[in-house]
Amino acid sequence: MDGAIDSKAFYDISYGLYVVTSVKDGKPNGQIANTVFQVSGKPAKVAVSISKENLTHDYIMASKVLAVSTLEEETPMPFIGLFGFKSGRDIDKLSQAAHTTGVTGCPCVTENTLSYLEGTVIDSADAGTHTVFIVEVKAAKVLKKGTPLTYAYYQDVKKGKASQNAPTYRGEPTKSEPEKKETSMQKYECSVCGYIYDPEKGDPEGNIPAGTPFEKLPEDWSCPVCGASKGDFNPL
Amino acid sequence: MDGAIDSKAFYDISYGLYVVTSVKDGKPNGQIANTVFQVSGKPAKVAVSISKENLTHDYIMASKVLAVSTLEEETPMPFIGLFGFKSGRDIDKLSQAAHTTGVTGCPCVTENTLSYLEGTVIDSADAGTHTVFIVEVKAAKVLKKGTPLTYAYYQDVKKGKASQNAPTYRGEPTKSEPEKKETSMQKYECSVCGYIYDPEKGDPEGNIPAGTPFEKLPEDWSCPVCGASKGDFNPL
Repeated sequence: MDGAIDSKAFYDISYGLYVVTSVKDGKPNGQIANTVFQVSGKPAKVAVSISKENLTHDYIMASKVLAVSTLEEETPMPFIGLFGFKSGRDIDKLSQAAHTTGVTGCPCVTENTLSYLEGTVIDSADAGTHTVFIVEVKAAKVLKKGTPLTYAYYQDVKKGKASQNAPTYRGEPTKSEPEKKETSMQKYECSVCGYIYDPEKGDPEGNIPAGTPFEKLPEDWSCPVCGASKGDFNPL
Repeated sequence: MDGAIDSKAFYDISYGLYVVTSVKDGKPNGQIANTVFQVSGKPAKVAVSISKENLTHDYIMASKVLAVSTLEEETPMPFIGLFGFKSGRDIDKLSQAAHTTGVTGCPCVTENTLSYLEGTVIDSADAGTHTVFIVEVKAAKVLKKGTPLTYAYYQDVKKGKASQNAPTYRGEPTKSEPEKKETSMQKYECSVCGYIYDPEKGDPEGNIPAGTPFEKLPEDWSCPVCGASKGDFNPL
């Protein structure tokens, strides 16, 4: 083939969705990641790719420990927003999520989690914007049986977006100047994470029934993905 | 948690299925891999984990180029068997699969492929039994739209097994001494790859109708997963 890179070719790669946690000077932090795979059976090792811009990256570099919690398909969007669209520089994420401390001293998220593992970094590879950490697993536990949340399910069914620091960030779709609609079924887009509020569907996880116009949402309603306020939404 | 490692915790990690190809001294080879993820957007980079025991690993180490073809859900099992359970030391796999030569000189499999990419190795990490290659993508192309084959689908729906060199190889299930059955609905297991022939299901991809006893299979019938011959099967 010629040397053109069609970025859509990357969309066919399959991923799960995970919370990756670490700790530094007693402070825990965590983030959503989709880039986790097992690289060796005995001893068990996994590879985890993390953006250099993320606080969790700093923590992993300092402590050389990390944990991976595999999320279940039923994971609510605000939980993904907490770990995926907010920074540990601003809030203490772990204070808002059930977790335990592992044998490595790393916090391990247990909420919405099918299973988790923790280990120590034994090698890494520089991928430019990201570091790929090779982790020797020290402990692993299954919490419950269930269907893992996949990135495809998150995107297709939950209509979730990627954080701008995600390796799989696909940018914003280009669109022409939107036609202003005055109907009450106007859709609104979150300017923080790109989530689209569709009145026809409402926000069942936030107890907003289908058919609720954006204008009728309570003033304290917040984006189910990233937690942004109602004022952060723009009409589509 | 304590320091126990429950290997079932790894089963919740999600994967796709890919053919990873390379070339050395003009000889092409390829293998099935499930461990591929994108690690950077601009420039696009992917990480690919390959067993050091596999011939493709030797080729990648020598030429520093590789290609990844993302398989479609409809990929027939014999195709997976060709790349997943046979060695390029024994046969020329690429002579049996449609492919093209990329800008890096690497063969790119196009059969049963949704999209493919190729690139050059710019870094790697040692994971013990496996090497994680960091690849800067030089070209990428979408061939058709479709649903990517996932490892979960391969295992749950297609009843496929992992190669012993796969990082996700789960070993053989422990079982007590099998009771000999004399019925014509006896199941048989492939000693090469673990595929189980179930007379109640037959082998639709091999044009064997449901209800066909193993004994009635044609002598030239071969394992739909790995291509092993009928004589390689043992009663369960």
